[in-house]
Amino acid sequence: MQLLKDRILKNGQLFPGNILKVDSFLNHQVDVELLREIGKEFKRIYSDCEINKILTIEASGIGIACIAAQFFSCPVVFAKKSKSINISNDFYQSDVKSYTHGNVNHVIVSKDFIGEGDKVLVIDDFLAHGCALRGLIDIIRGAGAELMGCGIVIEKGFQHGGDELREMGVRVESLAIVESMNPETGEIVFR
Amino acid sequence: MQLLKDRILKNGQLFPGNILKVDSFLNHQVDVELLREIGKEFKRIYSDCEINKILTIEASGIGIACIAAQFFSCPVVFAKKSKSINISNDFYQSDVKSYTHGNVNHVIVSKDFIGEGDKVLVIDDFLAHGCALRGLIDIIRGAGAELMGCGIVIEKGFQHGGDELREMGVRVESLAIVESMNPETGEIVFR
Repeated sequence: MQLLKDRILKNGQLFPGNILKVDSFLNHQVDVELLREIGKEFKRIYSDCEINKILTIEASGIGIACIAAQFFSCPVVFAKKSKSINISNDFYQSDVKSYTHGNVNHVIVSKDFIGEGDKVLVIDDFLAHGCALRGLIDIIRGAGAELMGCGIVIEKGFQHGGDELREMGVRVESLAIVESMNPETGEIVFR
Repeated sequence: MQLLKDRILKNGQLFPGNILKVDSFLNHQVDVELLREIGKEFKRIYSDCEINKILTIEASGIGIACIAAQFFSCPVVFAKKSKSINISNDFYQSDVKSYTHGNVNHVIVSKDFIGEGDKVLVIDDFLAHGCALRGLIDIIRGAGAELMGCGIVIEKGFQHGGDELREMGVRVESLAIVESMNPETGEIVFR
């Protein structure tokens, strides 16, 4: 998606440790006009699929998922992160390692909001090692719902989480795939 | 807002400890069609104000703020919750007590995204004791920005945070104000 790539080149900031900061338009301040274009693009890509639910994970996926859901005319469910293991039988749960924060989150979704018959699109802002996405996919499969695919705004191609999922047969559509980036020169190369 | 009150009466669940669960349509599963009506209503109420930024707090405010921002044609900034005190000079920071979780969060907003000349509308899902809202208002004032008002989806009127803010001269507009609720009978009375 050229509009997005241009914006990453214009406003993205690189830092050592493979950090691409896009918090001026995506995950702290949010350019809602850009989000609308992103939402339309996800709808265009997945126009061949009947999707009746969008699943994302708090926090920065929520805005993207809600704006996109308008074009799919379906509700959003956002998975919650919990420090403690939830012993309730009311939730599907998966453990997600965060490379960014160096910890493990327990990700939970109420059994009331996902189940058999649901055709689910997963939406998130970033895909790097794919841990969050795998957690959400676990939950979808554990619920007996159908995973239609994943819609990612920015994939860090060099961290291979996306390709591993594709090799497992998961449909992963990313609007911008960063192949390499160099915090010293500021260069960002897209796949 | 009658549509919202009807939905709370239909799908809201009461639990001891003044808990009103609306996670089937507002803060776990999200009815995006309802959110659009909520966004339009905030725009109608604040149509007399020039607003150039919407401020909310992660996580459950984000979807509401992003959908509403479409009607204001402005960006959203969402404050982040941080367990640790952020010693960076790059952020405005405020401490927010959570009655729900019994802890204190440090709420931060980058100085890049709020400042003098900004006319800010605060949007959030719930207003009870008003701690989160006070934290956001502190940040707006610390940044030298102008607080135009607050748009709240559900206010728990019996916990008085909203009225305290109104007495301080803050414009607080809530789409549904719960005056009382009884988990034993299931009765919810709106102001």
